[in-house]
Amino acid sequence: MNVPVKTPVSETSWLEAVAWDAQGLVPVITQEAASGEILMLAWMNREALSLTVAEGRAIYWSRSRNRLWRKGEASGHVQWVKEIRLDCDNDVVLLKVEQISGIACHTGRKSCFFQRLESGVWQAVDPVLKAPEDIYR
Amino acid sequence: MNVPVKTPVSETSWLEAVAWDAQGLVPVITQEAASGEILMLAWMNREALSLTVAEGRAIYWSRSRNRLWRKGEASGHVQWVKEIRLDCDNDVVLLKVEQISGIACHTGRKSCFFQRLESGVWQAVDPVLKAPEDIYR
Repeated sequence: MNVPVKTPVSETSWLEAVAWDAQGLVPVITQEAASGEILMLAWMNREALSLTVAEGRAIYWSRSRNRLWRKGEASGHVQWVKEIRLDCDNDVVLLKVEQISGIACHTGRKSCFFQRLESGVWQAVDPVLKAPEDIYR
Repeated sequence: MNVPVKTPVSETSWLEAVAWDAQGLVPVITQEAASGEILMLAWMNREALSLTVAEGRAIYWSRSRNRLWRKGEASGHVQWVKEIRLDCDNDVVLLKVEQISGIACHTGRKSCFFQRLESGVWQAVDPVLKAPEDIYR
């Protein structure tokens, strides 16, 4: 009689559960844990998500620069991860973070979603908290 | 002397400002306006975003069914739009909505992001508020 062998859970099985797209990426929504404000949307590959979990800080895959992007590496605006969630289709990740300095956007605003549609026009409605030339120098 | 002719702003210029991807789509984060809770991420094409603005309710493009998807058309779980935002790269939209019945997910949960990473395992941590077989019938 063949006794089924219990397969050990792979250390990376949670990574394999993610429904990576054809480019091996998944969109990641980043939300400020304390306020609930949505800060940005970026992308991760397996390595980025694995490193994010291992280091406890947001590490994305930059599609424009085609390399890992440790959020805050240039600006100091690191995102410390408080919680990681996955949606019902396993194809979107949600990070709840503490945003160092309270600035996520490269424009110097808190959130990247600072343009609001008003009477058919996108209006920048949130203040610049720090000038980009003072962030990146 | 040639006098520059002032070009009238097209009624759809706000639609053209969106950085549609190669498939003509943009990812859309949907957030409950009152609580700040993230409900879901879906996709829109030009027609879906245009109709969303015109009708004041979330209308997505279903990539799996390849057709417009009026959120709530089967479930009744309509999303009334309170605010529309665009991110700094113009390639992600944020909808702030009132979620009818308080259920966005097809599993009967409030949010699609009900799986939390805990010690290397995705755990379903949010309650099912209504059984799917009672939603879709």
